[in-house]
Amino acid sequence: MPRYPHVSPVVAAMPGRIYSSLAHRMAAHPGETYPLHVGDTYMEPAVGCRMQDLTVADHPGMHRYSSVQGDRALLDAICARTERTQGVPTPRDAVLVTAGATGGLGAVCGALVGLGDEVIILAPFWPLIAGIVHTMGGKPVPVPFFPDADTPITPEAAVKAVEAAITDRTVALYVNTPHNPTGRVIPQPVLAALAELTRKHDLWLLADEVYEHYVYRGEHAYTRPLAPERTFSNHSFSKAYGMAGNRCGYVVGPPEVMPELRKVSTHVWYSTPTASQIAAYNALQGPGDAWAAKARDLYADVGARAAARLGVPAPEGSTFLFLDVADALDDRGVDGLLSDCVDQGLLVGPGESFGPYPTHVRLCFTSVEPERALRGVDVLARCLGR
Amino acid sequence: MPRYPHVSPVVAAMPGRIYSSLAHRMAAHPGETYPLHVGDTYMEPAVGCRMQDLTVADHPGMHRYSSVQGDRALLDAICARTERTQGVPTPRDAVLVTAGATGGLGAVCGALVGLGDEVIILAPFWPLIAGIVHTMGGKPVPVPFFPDADTPITPEAAVKAVEAAITDRTVALYVNTPHNPTGRVIPQPVLAALAELTRKHDLWLLADEVYEHYVYRGEHAYTRPLAPERTFSNHSFSKAYGMAGNRCGYVVGPPEVMPELRKVSTHVWYSTPTASQIAAYNALQGPGDAWAAKARDLYADVGARAAARLGVPAPEGSTFLFLDVADALDDRGVDGLLSDCVDQGLLVGPGESFGPYPTHVRLCFTSVEPERALRGVDVLARCLGR
Repeated sequence: MPRYPHVSPVVAAMPGRIYSSLAHRMAAHPGETYPLHVGDTYMEPAVGCRMQDLTVADHPGMHRYSSVQGDRALLDAICARTERTQGVPTPRDAVLVTAGATGGLGAVCGALVGLGDEVIILAPFWPLIAGIVHTMGGKPVPVPFFPDADTPITPEAAVKAVEAAITDRTVALYVNTPHNPTGRVIPQPVLAALAELTRKHDLWLLADEVYEHYVYRGEHAYTRPLAPERTFSNHSFSKAYGMAGNRCGYVVGPPEVMPELRKVSTHVWYSTPTASQIAAYNALQGPGDAWAAKARDLYADVGARAAARLGVPAPEGSTFLFLDVADALDDRGVDGLLSDCVDQGLLVGPGESFGPYPTHVRLCFTSVEPERALRGVDVLARCLGR
Repeated sequence: MPRYPHVSPVVAAMPGRIYSSLAHRMAAHPGETYPLHVGDTYMEPAVGCRMQDLTVADHPGMHRYSSVQGDRALLDAICARTERTQGVPTPRDAVLVTAGATGGLGAVCGALVGLGDEVIILAPFWPLIAGIVHTMGGKPVPVPFFPDADTPITPEAAVKAVEAAITDRTVALYVNTPHNPTGRVIPQPVLAALAELTRKHDLWLLADEVYEHYVYRGEHAYTRPLAPERTFSNHSFSKAYGMAGNRCGYVVGPPEVMPELRKVSTHVWYSTPTASQIAAYNALQGPGDAWAAKARDLYADVGARAAARLGVPAPEGSTFLFLDVADALDDRGVDGLLSDCVDQGLLVGPGESFGPYPTHVRLCFTSVEPERALRGVDVLARCLGR
């Protein structure tokens, strides 16, 4: 009972901000800076999809609440797109428009995860997913899964790794492809084997596909067609179309469970921003895919050049590189490397934010303009002696 | 363990949408409609504070993530305003910008409430607060508190009612003034007595003041100056300046606990929409208060006229009337009345959404233009035989 001055033990046990002291130092850096620790884009959204394009004359009442499920026009556009990309019937009741994919996964975990329930998370992992599971009272169970960038991911190894982690408290498996932080893309046969495994063990399946537009080699495979009765497919206008600040994404899942997600979303952020939903709708009318196609080419180029400079394979997808830098660390460990980088204006993420990876770092190669990002990569390469 | 196809028992036990079937019927209504069930405004935000006023040229990167705590310029404007209105030192670390006041109270309850912990809620109450406490695993404990509109609220009665509900699981008291749904304003001596009571019992104090700008008789008293060490003061740009769809509000609380709130907010909706924060900042530069002063006069007038037509005292504040309609109900109860209203295009809220009030209804007199709202009120008055 956390009466004043105490707080909830669940929240107290969670780690706090990881970048604050370094970000503070970087803010004081006199020269050019390279904030490659954040997953974001330097590109402005497509014309027609910016806030300045959305007028009260065209959209009277656009500053009022929307429906908690989402604006009807946007819901219908999402249903049409999802049926086209996933090939699965997607009625309006299968969709919840969310405060970004973070809000979507928050609603999914809030609905599915009770106190002490376990969610298996393929590691390394997007840091927020562990915190989301924690916040909802659950226990994230990281399973080392993604091999080195040049080793294939096989169905057999995938099933073996995940099945070994299933306990009688496991309720769900979280899969993210294209992958943050490794830049890997999980092959379709691996997803099929994992979907079959969730069916065998009566688990829910959380498919985080926010980088679905950003594949540079191979092809993105959707998870929901493999087990539509148990899969929550998470998507993001943020990542797709350069609108992270708009806080708009969506979840597609089994219609009979979506009312449970809406209970959670209604009570943690109520409705998704109305203007952001109009911007998302406009993006889905064509400008978004044109923007994403252009972004994909630019991202592929800068990602490959960044990887080459660091001596690692080019990313298959997403907007990240995840490097084992053990050979370049002194007895200060990764903290020392990060500190040296900050002295030269570069911020990257420490591996331990992404699971049990104390000698790795992550960088995002799209958070600033390509040439500037590459100058940041060069800072890192020099710190690593590469 | 809620494996597929089951969900979290906490969420499963929560009631779902309350308006859906009636709203569906109203959507099919052929004539003018009166959606007075929603707490919103018919007014567009002030010029300079609309999305169309926010350009990429003026705000490069305005579609990217903001800091999870909030944009610095907005934080500083909130600190300055809060010190002016509340007279309490308010450093930047005391503030969290939130996805509306709902997101703010979600972050507060997420940080403070553990499984089974009780939060005392003065009843009748804003429906979402019960759901927020539920979502975070807690138990809302409604305490009948607000008397008839013409009976004074006294410190003695307030303390007696609340103290009787305190158990060894109680962690917090939720107070809302100006009040949704009754339109009452809690006098300063009552707030002082309640603050003293929380100090006596080591409770946290949640002060929901989203209608602080909308007082028509008397004066709004802030709670935080009475117990700044334990009070979370919740505010809304939605209600203040007509921006509910922007999803931007803020919480002010003890700096040493705010990092715990940030953990929750980061993991349920990440950051508050960036453009919405710029709009809020612009509103705080003057246009917002001018808009609110005009809205206050308009709201006071329509509220008084609506109350007169229904034969009840004019509201002291907020944008609602809460009526006991027992004398007009047949054996169908409030559901029958609501159904009759929908047949004439009017939607109002059933009393049981607001606590143990099965013979009450709530209406918002600002959700549509004044004359239209009054035509809706007339529909209700005729249904009630008034």
